[in-house]
Amino acid sequence: MDIAEQITNIAKQAKKASRSVAILDTQQKNRVLADIRDLLISGKDLLQKENRKDLEKAQKQRLENSLIDRLTLSDKVIKGMAEGLDDVINLPDPVGEVEKMWIRPNRLQVGKVRIPLGVIGMIYESRPNVTIDAAGLCLKSGNAIILRGGKEALNSNLALADIVQKALARSGISENAVQVIPITDREAVTEMLKLQELIDVIIPRGGEGLIRTVYENSRIPVIAHYKGVCHVFIDQSADPLMAEQITINSKTHRPGVCNALETLLVHRAFAETHLKDLIKALKEKGVIIKGCEKTTKIAGDIEKATEDDWHAEYLDLRLSVRVVENLEEAMNHIECYGSKHTETIVTSDYANGRKFLSAVDSSVVLINASTRFNDGGQLGLGAEIGISTSKLHAFGPMGLEELTTKKFIVFGEGQIRE
Amino acid sequence: MDIAEQITNIAKQAKKASRSVAILDTQQKNRVLADIRDLLISGKDLLQKENRKDLEKAQKQRLENSLIDRLTLSDKVIKGMAEGLDDVINLPDPVGEVEKMWIRPNRLQVGKVRIPLGVIGMIYESRPNVTIDAAGLCLKSGNAIILRGGKEALNSNLALADIVQKALARSGISENAVQVIPITDREAVTEMLKLQELIDVIIPRGGEGLIRTVYENSRIPVIAHYKGVCHVFIDQSADPLMAEQITINSKTHRPGVCNALETLLVHRAFAETHLKDLIKALKEKGVIIKGCEKTTKIAGDIEKATEDDWHAEYLDLRLSVRVVENLEEAMNHIECYGSKHTETIVTSDYANGRKFLSAVDSSVVLINASTRFNDGGQLGLGAEIGISTSKLHAFGPMGLEELTTKKFIVFGEGQIRE
Repeated sequence: MDIAEQITNIAKQAKKASRSVAILDTQQKNRVLADIRDLLISGKDLLQKENRKDLEKAQKQRLENSLIDRLTLSDKVIKGMAEGLDDVINLPDPVGEVEKMWIRPNRLQVGKVRIPLGVIGMIYESRPNVTIDAAGLCLKSGNAIILRGGKEALNSNLALADIVQKALARSGISENAVQVIPITDREAVTEMLKLQELIDVIIPRGGEGLIRTVYENSRIPVIAHYKGVCHVFIDQSADPLMAEQITINSKTHRPGVCNALETLLVHRAFAETHLKDLIKALKEKGVIIKGCEKTTKIAGDIEKATEDDWHAEYLDLRLSVRVVENLEEAMNHIECYGSKHTETIVTSDYANGRKFLSAVDSSVVLINASTRFNDGGQLGLGAEIGISTSKLHAFGPMGLEELTTKKFIVFGEGQIRE
Repeated sequence: MDIAEQITNIAKQAKKASRSVAILDTQQKNRVLADIRDLLISGKDLLQKENRKDLEKAQKQRLENSLIDRLTLSDKVIKGMAEGLDDVINLPDPVGEVEKMWIRPNRLQVGKVRIPLGVIGMIYESRPNVTIDAAGLCLKSGNAIILRGGKEALNSNLALADIVQKALARSGISENAVQVIPITDREAVTEMLKLQELIDVIIPRGGEGLIRTVYENSRIPVIAHYKGVCHVFIDQSADPLMAEQITINSKTHRPGVCNALETLLVHRAFAETHLKDLIKALKEKGVIIKGCEKTTKIAGDIEKATEDDWHAEYLDLRLSVRVVENLEEAMNHIECYGSKHTETIVTSDYANGRKFLSAVDSSVVLINASTRFNDGGQLGLGAEIGISTSKLHAFGPMGLEELTTKKFIVFGEGQIRE
């Protein structure tokens, strides 16, 4: 059997399993999640044994430390996965929800009911914890899932899939509801992306390159974010202390993630009185600044930003800073260089706050709060499977609800069209 | 300037215009729609002069009557477009709607606000009325639109675009908010489908071939329906008169449209007592039946259905009929041959009705009502831009709301992540 056939078989089995997962009730789904959690804890030793195979290979191949770090199923990571499952158990089940129904003049009663999407295809790098996070969210939302993690994590992912499938079997649910693709060949992904009749949506997680490749090759709808080039705009009327705290938190709280600040925009009037101190505070936190001409004039000893810096998603302790004339110039900069991810205004001005909130076209727009709040948990959605920066279907953090859609249901008593 | 450059320019202008259309208030948008309506009526003679150019060419090329019919901007069609605009004026504006907001433990106030998608790309056959319908819906939902109609309708579409752009200019809105692509070359479509940075969604309307081509070539998300292979299942407990009325209405009310009935499934017990009469009644309405073996046994003189018939979207007065053992067999048939469009059960049985409603995976599922109700107007959404049979973003009739998405807005007073 060649790779195309193998992948097609996996997808066909997933589609078949998706029908039975879709009609499980909340209690049944929660029981499976609890079983996965328990099996993770009780099967820790075997899991870590399989994980060590991946780690040894990675060390032999002298892979980067950061990759080995993400690959490691330490006690702490396993505990984190188990707790993540508990979080998902505690979230409300979105399936079956009908927000409202209405009556038509001919007495038809019409409503929309939330249903699972069907089969989710997940493509991600060598982070085995994603295997459990994604499986948990997809099962709770009534979907089947096909997982294609990075090749460096294959043994770990297969061991995790084994645990999940044991839990499914315990409840008499088809094990094909959660499948890990056992083929590390790139062709497996290419084939998977062709199966638009069997897979309903592809969610890629990883670097910009991975996501771009998936977008360009997929005939299945894709939901993902390319980049998080996030901005904070400090307005003229901003409280200086608040501006400093939000800037530092947005930049330094966890610089390597997509909702970290990358470009700071500062109103000229605020810059004249406060930018020097702000940059000093940032430097004390280890932040390396690249500034526009005005910034360098005000703060001295700073490297000059180039056009590339305004586009950059540094993902580390670098920050580009630009002084702007007013709110409009700030919003134009965001429109031109932003990635529709997260944008914050720090202001005391009512009209400017409202204008920024309504005109900025990003998945999360904030007034007087850190960009780091663009996160499913922080915004109150519970666990998230990713953050979307494309507008279709989901925009922003994707939780359980975003793994579902709605169909129309209609109750009649013989109505026909005249 | 080659075609790729021309199309890119059009899309860039659309994207720029989309920013200004997005922030128009309801009154401004309604004024433009009313101006289009008035200019359609007052400019009727010029419009019909341009339309005659298309019609003369079509007649010279001996195009099918049905195509010429759809191409004709008769007084009645123009009146219909004007009335359609009035309907859209009367619909509530979805933009800016916030369904609810919630407070996080750290006192952040979070909500989701409805925003336009941005730039809609519409690809359709030679039906110039779609030009106005689509422009009206997209403008009302705050979007810019790029229209690519069939080449046979180019003069008509350019004349209609001229009217729309005059109305936009009257209100001081960029004329680039509604553009008709003046290039009939197929390359124009191919180039358009590549511009994923500039166009947010592609909505194709037309035959299966057109839609398949768009799906296969687009790097932009596509929303459309392939086929409407709609089913009515008559359960054992169905009221015979109701079953007959719903079947006849679903099949014969307008056989050429996507929500018309194509395959009738009949419970064996109902078939034994009532199928003969039902088929007689269908034949009296001019319906040609293709039946399964049991159907031919019961109703006699009927052509035998082949595998192709169960897949067929006839779009005319033909109907395939199959006798099934029970509800499960009916649902399996729908799962296997259906197109996720519209399915109806006729039943008096509470449990079976509930089961059908919850398990059938189609955009509109009905109990005791005609399939012809899968329509934005009939379901109470107002005018529709199409019906989606893919689950992402929209499933079923797409009205104004489906031309929008939601972004998160967050109100803080200095919150940072600890």
